[in-house]
Amino acid sequence: MDFSSKLLENAVNEVSRLPGIGKRTALRLVLHLLKQPSEHTQYLSQALLHLRNDVKTCEKCHNISDTVLCDICKNPKRKPEVVCVVEDIRDVMAIESTSQFNGLYHVLGGKISPIEGIGPQDLKIEPLIQKVENGEIKELIFALSSTMEGDTTNFYIYKQIEKFRIMTSTIARGISVGDELEYADEVTLGRSIVNRIPFEQSIRG
Amino acid sequence: MDFSSKLLENAVNEVSRLPGIGKRTALRLVLHLLKQPSEHTQYLSQALLHLRNDVKTCEKCHNISDTVLCDICKNPKRKPEVVCVVEDIRDVMAIESTSQFNGLYHVLGGKISPIEGIGPQDLKIEPLIQKVENGEIKELIFALSSTMEGDTTNFYIYKQIEKFRIMTSTIARGISVGDELEYADEVTLGRSIVNRIPFEQSIRG
Repeated sequence: MDFSSKLLENAVNEVSRLPGIGKRTALRLVLHLLKQPSEHTQYLSQALLHLRNDVKTCEKCHNISDTVLCDICKNPKRKPEVVCVVEDIRDVMAIESTSQFNGLYHVLGGKISPIEGIGPQDLKIEPLIQKVENGEIKELIFALSSTMEGDTTNFYIYKQIEKFRIMTSTIARGISVGDELEYADEVTLGRSIVNRIPFEQSIRG
Repeated sequence: MDFSSKLLENAVNEVSRLPGIGKRTALRLVLHLLKQPSEHTQYLSQALLHLRNDVKTCEKCHNISDTVLCDICKNPKRKPEVVCVVEDIRDVMAIESTSQFNGLYHVLGGKISPIEGIGPQDLKIEPLIQKVENGEIKELIFALSSTMEGDTTNFYIYKQIEKFRIMTSTIARGISVGDELEYADEVTLGRSIVNRIPFEQSIRG
C-alpha cells in the first residue's frame, strides 16, 4: 500500500498489528476515526492507555480487576473452598453469565502450549498449587477449553495436586442443548454416551 | 456483558464504537493489548492521536497529506488539467496502484446520500466547480462507485459544470478481467454490450 501521508501510514501499521486486523480493515477504521469528532480518538486512546497502565489483577484469583481483591473473591456469599480453574477473564464472564456456579475462580492466564512457547512457568499454576497445599481448596473444577492444550494443562495440574487428595472434576463434555444428534461429531457423541448421567438427574438440571 | 473491571469495560466500549467491531471482538483486541508489552498500547494510542490532531488535507485535491500540497499535486510530471473525481483516499490509492493515470485527483470526501444525511454542501464539490470555472481543468473523469449514491453525485456535479463545456468521462463499467460471463449480473453485462469498444482498442489496452 502506498500512503500519501506518513501519519496515516503509521496509524494503519499500528492498528493492523492487532490480531485479525489486516491493512485494509485498519485503513477503514482509521479513516472512520478521521471522519468523527477528534474527541472519539481521544477517548479511545485514553481508555486503552488507562487500562494498560492502571489495570490490576486480583491477588487471589488473578482475574482482571480494578481493586486488590476482585468482586467475586470479596463476595462473602460465595464458597471459597470450591475453585474453578479457567484460562482467562472471558471464561469467567461466560461461567458467571450462567449463574450456576457460586465458588471462586483461579485464572491461569493461558494454556500450556509448546507450539506457542508457553510453559507451566508462564501461567499462574504455582499459586494454585500453593492454595491446594495450604488446604484452602476442597474441590477443584477444571473448566479449560476441550483442546489438546486445555487437556495438557488439566493433566499437568492434576499430576501436581494428586497427592493432596482433594475433590477434582472437569466440566461435562457432550451434545450441546438444542443440537441434533446426527450432526454431532463422533468424539463428542462417544464421550456423551460413556459419561451418561441418570435420567432423574438430567430432568432436575 | 458483566465486566469485573471498569477500566476494561471502558476500553471495550470505546473499541466497539469502531465500525464492524462488536463487543466480543473488542474484548479480544483489548485482552491482546494487555498481554503485549505496554509500549504497544502506547505506540497505538500515540499514532491515532497524532494522526487525528496533525493530519492535513491537501489544499488542491483535498486528499489526506502531511504537507500543504500532497505529493501527487506537487509532482511536475503529472498533468494538472486532467482531474479524476473520487470519493476518498482509498480510491486514490487504488487508482495509483494501477499506474494508468497521470493526472491529478479531486477527493470529495464522500458521496451524496440523503439516507445518511450527506448533502452536496458536506462534500468538496464547490471547490471542484471553482476549479472548472477558473479554467484549470480540461478533462474531468468521474471515478465514483457504481452505486445509487455514486451516480447521483456524478449527475449533480455534471449538471453544475455542464455549461463550461469541458471534456467529461466516467470510468468504464463492464465484466471484470478474468470473470465468467454466465456469472455476471445482467445490468453489468447489459452495460458492457451497449458500451462495447473496438476490438483493436481492446487488444492494445
